Order: sequence, then structure tokens, then C-alpha cells
Amino acid sequence: MKVGFVGLGVMGRGMASQLLKAGHEVWLWNRSPRAIEALVAEGAHAATDPLKLLAEVEVVHSMLANDQAVRQVLLTPPVLEALRGKVHVNHATISIELVRELVKAHVAHQATYVAAPVFGRPDVAAAGRLNMLAAGPAEAVAKVRPLLEVMSAKVWPMGDLPERAHITKIAGNLMLASAIGSMAEASALTRAYGVSAADFLDVMTRTLFAAPAYQGYGKMIAEEHYQPAGFAMALGYKDVGLGLAAASAEQVPMPIAGVLRDALLEAMAAGDGELDWAALAKVAAARAHLQQRGKA
Amino acid sequence: MKVGFVGLGVMGRGMASQLLKAGHEVWLWNRSPRAIEALVAEGAHAATDPLKLLAEVEVVHSMLANDQAVRQVLLTPPVLEALRGKVHVNHATISIELVRELVKAHVAHQATYVAAPVFGRPDVAAAGRLNMLAAGPAEAVAKVRPLLEVMSAKVWPMGDLPERAHITKIAGNLMLASAIGSMAEASALTRAYGVSAADFLDVMTRTLFAAPAYQGYGKMIAEEHYQPAGFAMALGYKDVGLGLAAASAEQVPMPIAGVLRDALLEAMAAGDGELDWAALAKVAAARAHLQQRGKA
Amino acid sequence: MKVGFVGLGVMGRGMASQLLKAGHEVWLWNRSPRAIEALVAEGAHAATDPLKLLAEVEVVHSMLANDQAVRQVLLTPPVLEALRGKVHVNHATISIELVRELVKAHVAHQATYVAAPVFGRPDVAAAGRLNMLAAGPAEAVAKVRPLLEVMSAKVWPMGDLPERAHITKIAGNLMLASAIGSMAEASALTRAYGVSAADFLDVMTRTLFAAPAYQGYGKMIAEEHYQPAGFAMALGYKDVGLGLAAASAEQVPMPIAGVLRDALLEAMAAGDGELDWAALAKVAAARAHLQQRGKA
Amino acid sequence: MKVGFVGLGVMGRGMASQLLKAGHEVWLWNRSPRAIEALVAEGAHAATDPLKLLAEVEVVHSMLANDQAVRQVLLTPPVLEALRGKVHVNHATISIELVRELVKAHVAHQATYVAAPVFGRPDVAAAGRLNMLAAGPAEAVAKVRPLLEVMSAKVWPMGDLPERAHITKIAGNLMLASAIGSMAEASALTRAYGVSAADFLDVMTRTLFAAPAYQGYGKMIAEEHYQPAGFAMALGYKDVGLGLAAASAEQVPMPIAGVLRDALLEAMAAGDGELDWAALAKVAAARAHLQQRGKA
Repeated sequence: MKVGFVGLGVMGRGMASQLLKAGHEVWLWNRSPRAIEALVAEGAHAATDPLKLLAEVEVVHSMLANDQAVRQVLLTPPVLEALRGKVHVNHATISIELVRELVKAHVAHQATYVAAPVFGRPDVAAAGRLNMLAAGPAEAVAKVRPLLEVMSAKVWPMGDLPERAHITKIAGNLMLASAIGSMAEASALTRAYGVSAADFLDVMTRTLFAAPAYQGYGKMIAEEHYQPAGFAMALGYKDVGLGLAAASAEQVPMPIAGVLRDALLEAMAAGDGELDWAALAKVAAARAHLQQRGKA
Repeated sequence: MKVGFVGLGVMGRGMASQLLKAGHEVWLWNRSPRAIEALVAEGAHAATDPLKLLAEVEVVHSMLANDQAVRQVLLTPPVLEALRGKVHVNHATISIELVRELVKAHVAHQATYVAAPVFGRPDVAAAGRLNMLAAGPAEAVAKVRPLLEVMSAKVWPMGDLPERAHITKIAGNLMLASAIGSMAEASALTRAYGVSAADFLDVMTRTLFAAPAYQGYGKMIAEEHYQPAGFAMALGYKDVGLGLAAASAEQVPMPIAGVLRDALLEAMAAGDGELDWAALAKVAAARAHLQQRGKA
Repeated sequence: MKVGFVGLGVMGRGMASQLLKAGHEVWLWNRSPRAIEALVAEGAHAATDPLKLLAEVEVVHSMLANDQAVRQVLLTPPVLEALRGKVHVNHATISIELVRELVKAHVAHQATYVAAPVFGRPDVAAAGRLNMLAAGPAEAVAKVRPLLEVMSAKVWPMGDLPERAHITKIAGNLMLASAIGSMAEASALTRAYGVSAADFLDVMTRTLFAAPAYQGYGKMIAEEHYQPAGFAMALGYKDVGLGLAAASAEQVPMPIAGVLRDALLEAMAAGDGELDWAALAKVAAARAHLQQRGKA
Repeated sequence: MKVGFVGLGVMGRGMASQLLKAGHEVWLWNRSPRAIEALVAEGAHAATDPLKLLAEVEVVHSMLANDQAVRQVLLTPPVLEALRGKVHVNHATISIELVRELVKAHVAHQATYVAAPVFGRPDVAAAGRLNMLAAGPAEAVAKVRPLLEVMSAKVWPMGDLPERAHITKIAGNLMLASAIGSMAEASALTRAYGVSAADFLDVMTRTLFAAPAYQGYGKMIAEEHYQPAGFAMALGYKDVGLGLAAASAEQVPMPIAGVLRDALLEAMAAGDGELDWAALAKVAAARAHLQQRGKA
């Protein structure tokens, strides 16, 4: 199939490379063209702007950084016009408010919006082992499903309404933030009693919490190794903010998310916005002044 | 070995039965004697009071309900006297403050205190598959280790200081409470958008959160099935309280634990103290008035 | 002076009436013209649209409901063009983000933006007894100061930068919300022990907390009298949201504000968005299930 | 009247001096006798132990530091025996749990317990201008009321049940902590925007918050002047703890109190336990890293 991919950051590149390997004719556009050089060397086609890309393909994937990028690149009259009759698969984590605007704009232009947000860090994307949620009109989902599957360990159908896939992704990220925040807080406690984060989290992540989320972040906390960031504090703050905004729109109190928001803000105020969000453990330790008190 | 076991609630019975199966001569005492009838039928000996039990054994295990029970049954001058020269293995989750008192009292009576708190619900105890932390003087731990192993999937050594095993257990329970609270809050959000807790948690607990803690409690939340309680709300409140007290004693701010405390109190105020603490999901849904608003 | 006033809600009407009484020639525009009939009967002039109003006056006041109204009515190219050379005094509580946009747009059109947010409920506005903050270019503030004074018990100069007056207003409203939330929580506690909110708050608001904010809201809580709303829950939620957004933009953790956010959301989820925000006391009582337990 | 006073800290000394000035025969006992020298020089009598004091008087006041001191000094069999037939007026802020024990013990010994906790700092006590709550059996309260009045600006009757006066005091202190916490948080926000705490709190404490609690603590925050402490962080932590314990016993969620608990712990972890609890503003500023970022 002739497939487009817009937004070739570190996630997008891994995903697009799987489409290419699967034998599709892949057209790429990225704001900074350098990001696509390697893929072009492997056989992808470079488009000079999104409109030219849309002229070539019947399905376009996007993995843009945030709401603002989606608005600038895709939510413009000419792009919407160029999407007419095509399927747009959005993999990015964006606000529910923007999802609703996008769905309306696609309908108004006889284009089809499929939500396909993903769980997985860049190495997982590069390996084609993402967990991918999928929601949208059944016929469109069926059409793009083979494309989704080449990028994924598993595709999780979430029904007809795109926002249901997006809210699932947003809620899942809140669970991730909570898991990190919980390890941060609990290991600050054990450290105050002389049990290192490494010893504590070793027990926990090999027993009750023997799950990828805990093992990956638990290792970073145990080693106090927060750079380079797989997922930066500032991105975590953005995603917790998407959760709180979605909660607000439907009146759902979320006190744990509120606590995480403050811890993320505190990290950014400390100048740690570029660290991996596992560094929430640094915030918990700082609040307890563990280092100054000579605690493990 | 001649081994005693004091406190034969649903956890203690499962643990003592493993000692019995392993061929030890097991002496039992429980406030209500009915609890030990089945074990006696299988070959255990019944003691009419703790002192008589201590006269028979060289190692005594205890699994009493809370601080108050430990104080009443064990922290008395005659019992401490009877412990002289013996090893006491405490499996219960008690306050750090009481642990410190117990250690002092044991030392003063030439008795040895070994901390061996456990992770696992009653069915796990009955199967001899607990995860057991162990801390205390090395020689004593070495002596009782074979006893610990017959009750456990794995024994995790935590060093010489008993309180380190206890704080690890307490911090671990805070992580469990956080995991439940996080699923509660996140699934309230997805439900407000039409994604059921079952659908949402199915994705999460089969991917990033594919761990026993999440799968067990996630199932209860998905099915809204909170009775009979494996671990009641009121016990969860007690354990979060132990965490907050330990945090207070060493000046460790724990905002997520504070949020959980309030949610547990709210459940108890609602008369739900006897439900499993997975019913934190009921609190999150009530705060968002999901049912009244016809949300999934 | 020829003065305009845009946005004649219940606050704006009281304020404009003071300008009129002081002898100024007052031009009015409001989306719904009925709101200005009484003032026109007292001598004010009605403009059929904001542009016509701006053609008549040298200073224009605005008191619009929220960011969206300000964007629609004032932040448009023709209105900005019509503001050239004039002073715009904004009394409304709006986001810092919008303040910054407004200031830039005014500068770009050689118009002057003066921030003059107010403390005081409608009856205080009608009596010309507001507390009014004022910030903007010194010359412009000096020019409009006589106008501000006729509406105010006191004008509080806050310097040259308009956002400083706005952040002061926003932070003040967070203090109000905290005061209400604190009375709500503390009186839920006393009620659980048989001391009514009335008895408790009577002591507090006549001693340590003998201040208008506590006495006014304390009375509403004591009487459980939340309608008609002087300031509705939904407006409170909006203002706490402005505070959290401002905190986010400058990385200031605000955990009390986060707690208030959740309580306000819970009230709105319960269908109480139209009650006065003093009904935070209803949320605190509901969480403790006081009524079901027969507490005072 | 022959009156005893036990516990002559800085509050107790001021209170006892008023009894003396009013012409009563005042007997004193304090653990450290130096604290009573000045009062003895003014005519008070020194007792060498609490039992000798009780032998002389018909009413005894106590103002001991905390639960532990009350237990050690008063809740002993000989002292309870010596209280038989007498009235004990307790001015201290203690736990509701201990209040209930004291009431039972007094009843068992035909002694009468009157609760008379106070609002006011040491200078207010020395001036005889406290606000004093009073609860207990009506006859006893009537008998001691003249004594209470010489120490107070006003005596607030709270009925027959002593715990109602105590819970009112505890809830009042939570309101004070919230007021400080709210000023701390709100002024951290304004400072991030260039409005000093002094400028911000000047507006607030002269308008909506023109009350003693806000003006006193607001001044300390504005001046960042936290020593010597009128009421130390560690005492504030104790009192918030009494509030949370009372809330727990009657299942009342108190999220704002939980936030304050963490901030107080953070201050103590930082080594600031001896500062006045107005230094909660220091915690809020530290979390936002205002100083490092050069904010006002």
C-alpha cells in the first residue's frame, strides 16, 4: 500500500521503518528533513511538504509531538482538503479536546480519523513491538489494521469512537506516572530506614510488581540513572496535564494525578525537566532531605 | 524441630500447616481455640496458654493481628522471661515503634527477635508460596531459615536489623495501596469517557502492568466484586497508617500515602470497611458521581 | 470624561453606575442589550457595537466573563485598531496567558492596557466599595485613577506590569478558596464530634478569623445556605484553574490548590455547579458521610 | 480561692500570673522549679510535687506540653486519688483519645474534668486576653468560670462534654495551619511573577483577610522572620497530627490537613523544626526553587 508518515521523531522513525520493512511504499515528511535521511536511504520517499505527501498516499500516519504541532501541521484548511477520502491514523498522545476537533474536521472533509496511540518506548517502536490501541469507524480500522500490526506486538481494538483509544492511552500514562511516583515515595521511606532503593525495589519488582513498567523505571531509580531520558520529565508533565484536562472536562476528581503534577513541576523548577521522569525519585528524596541527613 | 506458632488466623493457619507438613513438631496457641482444631487433627499440639507453648519449643513464630495483640500476648514480663534463650520469629505487620520496643525487650531478656514479614494473601500462605523478608542476627536467621523456606516461594534476606524487614513490608504495602488507588482513579477517568474499567484494565494488566498485584486487584475492580475481602479496607487503612507513622518518625513526606489515607477513610465512613480494599475504585467512582450520571 | 464600559453583568453594572453617578459621560455595550436598560434610563448611552462605543470614548473599561469572551469581543483586529491611542482598563479575572497576549496586542496598536482586577461581590460593586488593584504604564494609571477611585473603597497600585495586578487577584482568589475549603474541612471534623458548624465557626470568625472573607462564607456554611450563589462553584473552579495554569507556567507547586480543584470538580459532578462555592462544605460533609451517620 | 497550677511553661506562667493578680492563693508545680521563681517572688506558693499541691487546693489548672507529659504527671493512681472531689481544669491541647481516658479516670475517682483549651500566643496569655473554650459539667464550669475569666478576653462555653472544647481547639489550629499554608502557597505564586510576599500580603491582610491570624503570620512571612518562634514548626506538626488522629477516629477525610502534614514534615527534615510554623512559606518557596531562579 502507498502509506504516508508525518512526524519522524525517535518514535516515528522506528514505526515507519517497520512499514518499510513490511514492503509498503512509504512517503515521509518531517519538519526537519535530516530526521528522514536514514529511512530514505532504506527506500522511503521524501515529500517536501505534507500536501505533496498526501497527494501520493491513501493512508497517512502521524506521530507529532503535541497539540500545537498537530494544529500547525494538520489542522489547516488545505491539509484537511487534501485528506478528503483518505484515512488518517494518529499515533500521538494529544488532548481529548483536540481529538474532538480533529474528528469533526475530518468528518466535515469526508476524511476518516483513526486513533492509534501506542504504549512503548523508542526501542520498542524500533523493534515493531508496540502495544497499539485502535479506535475509529470499523471499516477504516479494518483497512489499516495490517499496517498497525506490522508496528505492534498487539493491536487492542477500542471501538468506534477515537477518543476512547486516546483516553485509554492518557489514563495508562497516569498509571505509569503513579507507578513511578509510588516507587519514588516508598523508596524514600525505606532509605530513611537504611534500606537502599536498589534493595527495596529488587524485592518488589521481582515479586508483586514483576511487570515491565516497574522493572524498567525501578532500575533507573535504583541506579539513580536518569540520563539520557527515555521519556523526559517535561513530557511526563505534559501527559499528566492531558489527564487532568480530560478529568476536568468530565468532572472526575483525580487526587493522585494532582500530587504527581506538583512533583513534576517541582522537578522542572529544580531544572530537571530534561531528566527521565523516573527522577520523580529525586524529588521525593529531596523533600525528605535524605542526602543532607546521610540516608542510604 | 520443636516449633511454636502463636496467632492462627487465616494467614497463620496456612503457614503453620506448612511447618507441620515439613515434619516439625508444631505447638499452637490461639486466643480462640477453635481456629486450631483442624491443625490439631492433622497432628499439631495445642497449648493452653503462650507460656506453656514456650516451655515446649526452641523457636516460636507469631502472626498476630496488630500492635495491640502483640502487646497483650507477647510484650509481658512472664512471656519475655519465657522467651529467654529462644528465637522469636515475627511474621506480622506491626509498627516500627513497636518493633523497636520488641527488639529492646528481647535483648534485655537474652531472647532473639527475627523479623519475617510476608507478602501474599491467605491462599498463597496455604500453598507455602509466600514471599518472606527476613532480618535479624545472622546466626538466628540461619537457624530459622529452613523453617521460613517451607512457608515461602522465596526468602529475601534484609540484613541484621529487624526494622529493615518491617519497613520493607510497610513500604511494599504502600506500593500496593498506590497501585489500587491508581487503577481506581484511572478507571474512573476512562469510565467517564465510556471505556469500562474491565476494558481499560484488561489492556493495562496484560501489557505494562502484567504483574500479580495489578492482575489480582484489577480483576476485582473490573468485576466490582469486593466481597469476601481478601484484605479488608480497614486493614488497608491500618497498614497505610503504619506507613504514615513510620514516615513521620523519620520525616519523610508521603503525599500519595496521604491521598490514600483519605480515600480509605471515606470508604470506612461510607460503611465499606469490610470490603476488600480494591473497593477504592468505588470511592473514586463515587467522587465522580459516575453512576448518577449514567457513566459506564 | 467620556468613558466606555463593555460587559455589563452584575458586577459591571454596579461599577458603571458609579462612573455615571460621578458625572462621567458613560457609553455602554453588552452582548445582551437588556442588561443596560436601567443604566440608560439613568443617563448612560447605549452603543450598538464595541466599535461604535470606541469611537466615542478615550477610556474603555471592560468586565467580561472569561477568556473566551475577551477574545471574542476585544481581541479582534478591528477592535484593536479602534483602541489605538486609547486606554483600556480591564477589570476581569482572566488567565495570565491572555493578559500577555493582550498587552502585546495593545502595544502593537499603540493602545494602553491597564489591569484593574477587583475584590468584592456584586453588592460591594454596587456600593462603589471595591478593593481594586491597578497596574500598567504609570501615566495611564494616573489618568484613569480618578475613574478607578469612584468605584472603589481603595485602589492598590501594583506597578507597571499589568500581569502583577492579575496574578495578585488570582492568588487572592486561591486564598479565598483555601479559606472556604479550610472551614469546610475543619467544620466537618467538629460536626463528627457533635459541635455544629454554626457553633464552631461562630467562635472562629469572632476571634482569630474575624475577617470579611471568613465571616461571609462562614455564615453561609453555618446556615447551609448556598443559593442564590454570590459566586458560583463553577466560577470558583474557573478561578482555581487560572491559578493552577499560572502556577504551571512558572513551575510553582500548589498542593492546596490541587486539593481545592478536586473538591470543586466533585461538587460539579454532583450537580452543584450553580451553588455558591461555600458549598465546598457540602463536599467535605459528603466525604465523611456525616448526614448518613446522624452527625450534627 | 485556693488554686493550683501545674505546668508553668511560657503559656502557663502568663495564665497563672493573672490568677495571682486577681487575688487568688495560687500554688504552683513545675518539673523544672526555675520556671516558677518569678511567680513565687510575686506571691505564689511553690509545691514540691503535684500531690502536695493537690493537698492545698480545690481547683487545679494544668497546661502541660503534650499527651506524654499529661500521662506522666497526672494520669497516675496517686494523683487521680488526690483529685477526688476536686475540679481539674485542663488548658492544654491534647489528643481526643487522651481526653476520653482522662474523663473516665476522673469520673472513676469522683473528680471533675473541665476542658478549657485556649487560643492565643504567650504575649496574649500574659495580658490575660486569651480566647478560652470551656466544656464540662455545668456546675463545675460555673464554679471555675471566674477563674477562667481573669485569664481571658472571652470565655466560650461549649457544653457539657469536654471533648467538644478540645475538638474545637484542634479544628481551630487546623484552620490556622491552613491559613499559613495558604499564604505560603499563594505568595510563592505571586513571587514567581515578581510580586513580593510583602506587597501581596499587605493587600490581602488589609482587605479580605484583615484578621489577627492572617496579619500576625502574614507579617512574619513578608519579613521572612521566623525566629524566635512564637509557635514552633514541631508543635504545629504535633497539632496537625492531633487533628488527623481525631479525624481518623471518626472517619473524616481531611485532604488539606494531609497536605499541611507533609509540608511540616518537609520543614523538619530540612532542620527547620525550631522555626515558627509561619516558615511553611519557606517550604513553598523551596519547592518552587524561587531563590535559585532569582524570583522576588
